[in-house]
Formats: sequence, structure tokens, C-alpha cells
Amino acid sequence: MDVGLVGIGNMGSGIAKSLLRAGHRVTAYNRTRARVDALASDGIQVAATPADACRGEAVLTILADDAAVESVVFDDNGILGALPQGGLHVSLSTISVALSDRLAAAHASSAQQFVSAPVFGRPDAADAGRLAVVAAGPPVSVDRCKPLFEAMGPKLMVVGEKPSLANVVKLSGNFLIASVLESLSEAIAFVRKSGVDPTALMDFLTSTLFNSPVYKTYGSLIVEGKHEPAGFAVPLGLKDVRLVLQAAEARSVPMPIASVIRDRFLTAIARGNQHSDWSVLGRIAAEDAGLPTTKKATA
Amino acid sequence: MDVGLVGIGNMGSGIAKSLLRAGHRVTAYNRTRARVDALASDGIQVAATPADACRGEAVLTILADDAAVESVVFDDNGILGALPQGGLHVSLSTISVALSDRLAAAHASSAQQFVSAPVFGRPDAADAGRLAVVAAGPPVSVDRCKPLFEAMGPKLMVVGEKPSLANVVKLSGNFLIASVLESLSEAIAFVRKSGVDPTALMDFLTSTLFNSPVYKTYGSLIVEGKHEPAGFAVPLGLKDVRLVLQAAEARSVPMPIASVIRDRFLTAIARGNQHSDWSVLGRIAAEDAGLPTTKKATA
Amino acid sequence: MDVGLVGIGNMGSGIAKSLLRAGHRVTAYNRTRARVDALASDGIQVAATPADACRGEAVLTILADDAAVESVVFDDNGILGALPQGGLHVSLSTISVALSDRLAAAHASSAQQFVSAPVFGRPDAADAGRLAVVAAGPPVSVDRCKPLFEAMGPKLMVVGEKPSLANVVKLSGNFLIASVLESLSEAIAFVRKSGVDPTALMDFLTSTLFNSPVYKTYGSLIVEGKHEPAGFAVPLGLKDVRLVLQAAEARSVPMPIASVIRDRFLTAIARGNQHSDWSVLGRIAAEDAGLPTTKKATA
Amino acid sequence: MDVGLVGIGNMGSGIAKSLLRAGHRVTAYNRTRARVDALASDGIQVAATPADACRGEAVLTILADDAAVESVVFDDNGILGALPQGGLHVSLSTISVALSDRLAAAHASSAQQFVSAPVFGRPDAADAGRLAVVAAGPPVSVDRCKPLFEAMGPKLMVVGEKPSLANVVKLSGNFLIASVLESLSEAIAFVRKSGVDPTALMDFLTSTLFNSPVYKTYGSLIVEGKHEPAGFAVPLGLKDVRLVLQAAEARSVPMPIASVIRDRFLTAIARGNQHSDWSVLGRIAAEDAGLPTTKKATA
Repeated sequence: MDVGLVGIGNMGSGIAKSLLRAGHRVTAYNRTRARVDALASDGIQVAATPADACRGEAVLTILADDAAVESVVFDDNGILGALPQGGLHVSLSTISVALSDRLAAAHASSAQQFVSAPVFGRPDAADAGRLAVVAAGPPVSVDRCKPLFEAMGPKLMVVGEKPSLANVVKLSGNFLIASVLESLSEAIAFVRKSGVDPTALMDFLTSTLFNSPVYKTYGSLIVEGKHEPAGFAVPLGLKDVRLVLQAAEARSVPMPIASVIRDRFLTAIARGNQHSDWSVLGRIAAEDAGLPTTKKATA
Repeated sequence: MDVGLVGIGNMGSGIAKSLLRAGHRVTAYNRTRARVDALASDGIQVAATPADACRGEAVLTILADDAAVESVVFDDNGILGALPQGGLHVSLSTISVALSDRLAAAHASSAQQFVSAPVFGRPDAADAGRLAVVAAGPPVSVDRCKPLFEAMGPKLMVVGEKPSLANVVKLSGNFLIASVLESLSEAIAFVRKSGVDPTALMDFLTSTLFNSPVYKTYGSLIVEGKHEPAGFAVPLGLKDVRLVLQAAEARSVPMPIASVIRDRFLTAIARGNQHSDWSVLGRIAAEDAGLPTTKKATA
Repeated sequence: MDVGLVGIGNMGSGIAKSLLRAGHRVTAYNRTRARVDALASDGIQVAATPADACRGEAVLTILADDAAVESVVFDDNGILGALPQGGLHVSLSTISVALSDRLAAAHASSAQQFVSAPVFGRPDAADAGRLAVVAAGPPVSVDRCKPLFEAMGPKLMVVGEKPSLANVVKLSGNFLIASVLESLSEAIAFVRKSGVDPTALMDFLTSTLFNSPVYKTYGSLIVEGKHEPAGFAVPLGLKDVRLVLQAAEARSVPMPIASVIRDRFLTAIARGNQHSDWSVLGRIAAEDAGLPTTKKATA
Repeated sequence: MDVGLVGIGNMGSGIAKSLLRAGHRVTAYNRTRARVDALASDGIQVAATPADACRGEAVLTILADDAAVESVVFDDNGILGALPQGGLHVSLSTISVALSDRLAAAHASSAQQFVSAPVFGRPDAADAGRLAVVAAGPPVSVDRCKPLFEAMGPKLMVVGEKPSLANVVKLSGNFLIASVLESLSEAIAFVRKSGVDPTALMDFLTSTLFNSPVYKTYGSLIVEGKHEPAGFAVPLGLKDVRLVLQAAEARSVPMPIASVIRDRFLTAIARGNQHSDWSVLGRIAAEDAGLPTTKKATA
């Protein structure tokens, strides 16, 4: 397929490569053009504006937050104005449920199609075409996307016709990961202060009850106190928990664990860990227990 | 080996069978004798008192809580008085760190050996010899237990020389499971109220990031609202969280998620779910979000 | 002084009367004009648009939330466009710190003056000229407002030159009141379930350590379970806690008690108490403790 | 009256003086005898054992915790053994509801009388005879105590016939004070980081909505960061919150704010503030917000 791609950050770059490798043609826009140029040898085409990325069969957006997506869609030379009737916008970003609803309404009133399809996976999974995709939108629109999703990863969940349902799922997943970070952080602080070797503990747990990637990856980061450089930085984790809490508040759903996690991320930032990985919750739990930590945070 | 076994509840019964199947000889005491008699055809011998179970190479205790263990050890005709010098007591129960320390001291001052070896697994795993054992104690004592542990399950973690370290690990593990229950309960209430099919959500999550037994088992119980009959009843879950909080308090370790879970278990009991499975946290989260639930709790 | 007043709700109506009683001339705008007409006999003049209320020495706004204030300021025929250079806008509403900053910037760039002066007190205090006013803004602007503040109540706190500082104080005060609601709710549930007469408890506490209006007023509402009709409805309480949490998040300040209260307000709404007074936290605490409550909430 | 008094700590010493000043005769026991001798000039008599303090019309105990009370009551030469039939034990200490129930049962089975009468007030109030007393017990026994209570302070609340009800009230009161500490700590961290002068804030609040002693006293300690020397040390505050949580758990009452406070006290201790006043929650909130604090805590 001929597709436009808006956003060539760590995730977007990997997605571009996966799409190209699967034989799609990609015209990409990025605010900092150098990042697109870096993919020239992979065969990517450069778009000068988001609008210029709207001339193919679909335009995909993969950006950091609501503000970035709003800008490329609603601003002058944005997607909403450039996409023809029947044109398809696929939003891959982790954005708010409210913005997803607003995009759906805006595209509908311009007779355009909209699919929300946030992805699970880190940049290396994007590169390798191993992302998991959660998609929602009108079935005919979702079907149009399938060749693209197949290029991005083997795992696809179609969650319903209303695009924002996919954002609900994505935010729930990130909430569950953050819950693992905080509960592991508390457990590891407890066992360390009790004299148990936390490495042995994690080896045991991840070979029995908790033998899943999330526990393995983050358990070892927390045990080692290795939170820099960030794979997924604290402000991004805080953003996702905030989006969960906002969406849940709109439906009157209390989420006390999400509230606890939000407070801990704020403390992490207040104590100077804003550039650390969100697994830095382990450092916060250690500090609150009076344990020595790997790095003295500076405010 | 010739062993005594004190406590033939759901777990003890399965452990007895696994020991017998592996060729050990088991003399068992249970307050309600009928439960021992039920295992007569498996070859079990009956002990009239805990003391009578102390004549073999080791005596194992597997009981519901601290009070039960204290009673069979410290009361008249108890293990402490009956065990000879050099005799070995192996505590398999989920008890407090403080009681484990007290048992270690009491046996040491009677020149007896003590190993703490709580187990992970439900009654069916006990029956099938598929428990995971976490053991701590003097290496020579732990070594003596190994044929017994092998009969109980394939997975053994030896955590140190101080017996109560094994209790720290066991309590941490149960805390992590309870954290999963609460975070899944919140996430599922959120997606249900947002219009996402929670079964599809759990299928997706447990085939990607969270493909571990805990998420699979409890995710489906919470989605279905199937909390009766109890596999592990709320008061036992509350007890374990209380023991974690007490042990962590003794070491000045705050555990905010454990505090949240404790409050939710109390609400579960206050609203009439004391006989339900600890996964009933899913019902509490649903009620707090104003969702319909499977069963009207009665106070 | 000749002043405009935008917003004749329960609070605005009382403020209008206090201003008139003190000899000021008031021209008022309200979306529903009937509420202004009801004050005709008090001598109020009717403005057809917010712009029409901008012809005096100052225009005051007292509205329910950010959206309402944004609308009367920024929309066509709004205050920003109508106010002359040097004109003064005094915002009495409980709005977000962020909106207060935005208003300050907008008025400054139009060479207008802006004072933020949220008020503490219920509608009866507004009526009686007994509000407490927290004001912030350039000293010369705050001075211009003093005759108005004196008419509104005897107590004035000037908190700084940056208008949004007054909003920080107002939100902090409301957070502290909400904290009292929740802590009293928990304490009263605890003593009721323990067999202590909660009326006697509150009589004792409010005549010793806690002899302040907040404890007296709300203690008795919670003890009696009298949460309808609402003096200050749950959604307004939730809004204020949300504004505190947002402003605190912007400064990386965790506020765990505010998080707890937010969750409880959400449960209150989810269980059908959206029209109740924010003291309904007492009913939620009672329900969570399995106690009978005054009214069966309906979802 | 002729009374025995067991416990001459900061509180007991003041109570002794108040009793003597009111004309009562006091025979006192203290583990460290020098503290009794220091009151010789006030007219106090020395008892060599708790039993020796049981020869008057009543024996009063005022000690730090459950363990201390258990020891002087149940040990050899303790009160239970020494008090004659019909003898009266008045417990003034802040002890657990469970111990209060146990004392009631033990004295009843020895045909002795028991009144629980914990007191509100700091040592200076004890000295000055300005304590507030909360008493519970059989009416005839409480009546016998009235001359003593009158000497201790002007304020008496009789809460019921079951002695432990007085402990429920005392613990609830201390929970409410601790809630004020934590909510003020959060609010003050928020306003400080927002640029508001916290002294001005507290002046305003305590002259309007929160004009009660608790807010005045602790607001100023938190604003000044003056937590040493301790008026009431962190471990005592933690003990009281623990007793509240235990008693509430026994009645299945969740108390989420109490849980938050417990976690914060643990962090305070873990970070080296175990000798500070319980108002040190202000320092913890400031640290968690990344604010500079008055004293670098040492682990």
C-alpha cells in the first residue's frame, strides 16, 4: 500500500522500517526532518507537511501525546483538511480517550474514515515488526488496515467499532504494567530490608507464578536499580496514568492503585528522576524504605 | 523417610498423598480425626496427638494460621516438648515472620532443628506433587528435607539460613498475587464501563504481555464474576496481606498497594463476601464503579 | 462603585445583594435572565450580554466552573473584547490555576487589569456579607477592589501579585475541608460499628480539640446521614479535588489524601449520589463498612 | 481519695500533681524510681511495686503502651493479684481496644472493678489539670472516679458501660489529629511549591474555617519545619494509627486515610525521623515534593 506516516520518533522509525520491509511505500513527515532523511536508504519518501503525507491509501500518525496529534490533524496543512473524502487516518499513538472520540467525530463530519490502533511494544519490537496492535473502528476501515497491521506485528486485537475503545484497552494495558512496577518495587524493598536476595526472589517468581515478559524485564531492572537510560521515561508513564484516571473519572470508575502510582511518579519527578525509566518506581520505594539506592537523585 | 504430618486440611491432605506416593511413611495428626481416616487407604498412619507425630525423622506442620501452629507446637503434648534433641520440625504453613523467628529460637534452645518451608500452589497442585517450595534454615537441616520437598513438587528455592526468610518470600509472593487481583479488578471495571468486552481484553493481554498463570486464572474469574466457591477465601487473603504489612512495618517499609488491598478486603467482608474467593476484589471494584455484579452481596 | 456582575447563581445572587446593600450599583448578566429579574426589587440592573456588564468601574464574575468563565470572557460579546483599556475584571469563581494564569495573560495583553478573588462561604454567607475573600493581583488593582470586598465580607487575605496564587489558596482550603469530610466519615463509621454513639463523640470532639465550624457543620451532617438536599453537590467537590490534583501535578507535588478523596467522590457518583451534598462521603464510608445508611442510593 | 498511680512519665507526673493539688493522696510506682522521688516535695508517696500501689480506693495506670500495661497488671506483684475484691483499676493509657477488653474480663473474673479512661492533652495540660477525659465502665465505677477526673481536667465524656468504648473514642480522636497533620502537610507542600507564603495561609485558615487548637498548633509546626524536640514522637503516632487500624479491621471497617498516614509514618522512621514529633509528616510531604526541608534526615 501507499501510505503516509506522520511521526518518525523511536516508535515511528521502527514502524516505517517494518512497513517498508513488507513492501509498502511510505511517505513520512516529521517535525525534525533529519529523522526522515536517516531512513532514506530504507526507501522512505519525505513529506514536507502532514498534508503532504495524505496522498496515499492511508495516513498513519505515531506521536508522543495529545498535543502533537492535535497539531498535525487540526492545524493548517493538517490531516483533516488534506485528506480526501473516504480517506483513512490510522492513529497509532497512545492518546486520550477524549481526543480519540474527537478525532472520530471530526473525520466523520468530513466523510473521512478513522481507525484508532495503538500499539504495545518497545522501539526494538517496532523495528522488528513484533508489535501487538489493538484496533477499533468501522469494520470496513479496520479491514483496509490489515496489511499494515500485519507488517507491524503478528498480534492484532480488534476491539469494536468505536475507535476510542482501542485507546481504553491500550491505557488499561499500560496501567497494568505500571501496577506491576509499583507492586514489584514494594515487594523488592520489603525483601531487601528483610535480608532476602532479591535476584533469587525474582528468579523464583518468574520461573513459577509470574513467568511473563513484564515481570522478567522490570523485575531485573528494579533489582539492579538500573533506571537510566530510560526505555520509557517517567513523564510518559505519568501521562498514561493520568489518561487512565481521566478516562475512568469520566465514567465514574475509581482506580485506587492508579492513584497510588500517579503519586509515586510525581515523587519520582520531584526528586529529580524525570529522565529516568518508569521502572524508577523501584528507586522511590527503596528511598521510602530508607534503603541505599544506585544513584543519588538530584532535585 | 518416616515423617509425621500435623494438619490434614485441603493442603495437608494433598501433601500427605504426594509423600506417600513417593514412598515416604506418614503418620498424621489432625484435630478432626476423620480427615486422617479418609486417607487410610493411601497408607497413612494415625497419630492421636501432635506429640505422637514426632517419632519419625521429621515432623511437618501445615496449618491455617499462627494460632493453629502455636497450639500444636507450644501446648501440652505439642511438638516442642515431644521432639527429641536433633529432631527436625519443618513448617510448611503461611505464618508470620515473627512466629517463624519465635519457632526458630524455641527449637534452637531445645537443641532441635527447624526449617521454614512455605509452599506456593493450590490444593490440586498439592495433590499432584506440583507445589513450589521456598525453604530456609541451616543447610544441614534443609538438606535433610530435600527428599520430602522433591515429593511435594519440582520447584525448590532455598533462600537462606534464617528460617523466617522463607516466610518473607512467601508473603511477598502472595502480596504480588493480591496486587494482580486488585489491578485486574480496577482495569476490568474500567473497560466494562467503557464498553470493551473484558473477555477479549484478557485474551489479548494473557497472550502477549501477561501470559502467566496468575493473570490467566484470576483474569477469567474476575471477568466471569465467579467468586464462589472459594479456592482461597477472603479472610485468608486478608490474613496474608496483614502479615505482609506487619512484617514490613517491623522493618519500616511502607507498602501503599498492600494498604489499598487490605482496605478492599475489609470492604469485601463488610459487604458479606467473607466466604468468597479472594478474587472477589473484582466484585468490589465493580460495585464501587456502579456496575451490576453477579451476586448481590448480603451483609 | 458602578460594577458589572456576571453570574447570578446561588453565590452570585447573595453577592449582588451584599454589594447593593453597601451602596454599590450593580448591572448583572445571567444566562437565565429570570434570576436577575428576581433581584429587581433590590435595585439590580439587567445586562443583556457579558459585554454589557463591562461598562462600570469593574466587572465581577462568579460562575460554576472553568468552561463557564471561559465562555463569558473569550466568546463573542465577552468580557475580554468589551472591557476598555485599564478596565478591571475580578474573578470570584473557584477555577483552575491554569485558567487563572491564562486570564491574567489575556487581560495583560489587552492592557486590562485582572484580580483573582475566590471566596470561602456558603450561599447564606454570601447573602449576609460574611464571605472570606482571598485576593491576588497587582496591588493597585487589588486596592481598587477593596470597597467591593468589604461589602462581601469582613475577612480579606491578599496573597500576592500573581492572580493565580489566590486560586491556589482557595483550592487548598477546599482540599482541607474535603479531608475533614473523609476523615470524619471514616472515624464515624469506625465508632458506629464499635458501638459508640457518634453524636456524643462529635459533641465531645467539637467542644475540645476540633471546635471549629467545619467539624461542627459536617460532623453533624455525617452523623445524621443528612446529605440531601445538597449545600455543595458532589460533582462540585470532585471538581475542586480534581483542580487541586491538576495544579499539584503541574508542580510535581503528590497529595495522597486528595487521591483517596477523589476516588471516594467517584464511588459516590457511581452509586447514584451525584445530587447529594459532598458530605455524602459519610454514606460511602458507612456502606464500605457494611453499615446501614439513611438512604438506599440508586445507580 | 487515697489512690495509687502506676507510671510517672511525662503524663503521669502531671496527673500526679493535679491529683495532689486537688487534695487526693497519691502513692506512686514507677519502674525508674527517681521519677517518683522527684515529686516528693509535692507530697507523693513511693510504692515499691505495682501491688503496693493497690491499697487505696483506686489504682490508676498511665503507661506508654499495651506491653507496659500488661506487665504491671498481669505480672507477679501486679495489680490483678494485689487488688482486693471490689477494688478499682482505672486505666488512663492509650491502649488497644483488645487489651481493654481483656482487662475488663480479667478484673471481672476477680470481682474487681475496671474503668477505661484515656485522656486527651499534652504533658503541660496534665500538669495544669486541663486534660479531657473519656471514660467508660459500669456507672457505679465511673461515679467513684469522678473526683479524680475532676482533678485531672474540666472536660469529661462518659461513653458507655463497656470500658473499651473509651479506647475506641480515644483512638478515633488521635486518628483525626493525625489526619489533620497529613492533610496540612500536603496542602502546605502544595502552596509552598506554588509560591504562596504558608504562614499567611495558615493565619487566614485558622482565623476562618479552621480556628481550632489542632490546626493552630500543628499548622505552625509544619510551616516552620519545627519537629524537634518531639512533643509526641513518631513511634507513638504510628502506634496509635496501628491500634486504630487493628480495631477497625476487627470490625471490618476500611479506613483508607489511616492507611495513608501509617505508610507516611513508616517512611518518616525509615528516613531517620524516629525521634521527631509526629508533625514531621510535614517534612515527609515536603521531601516527596522535592522541597528543601529544615533538617537533613539521616537514615
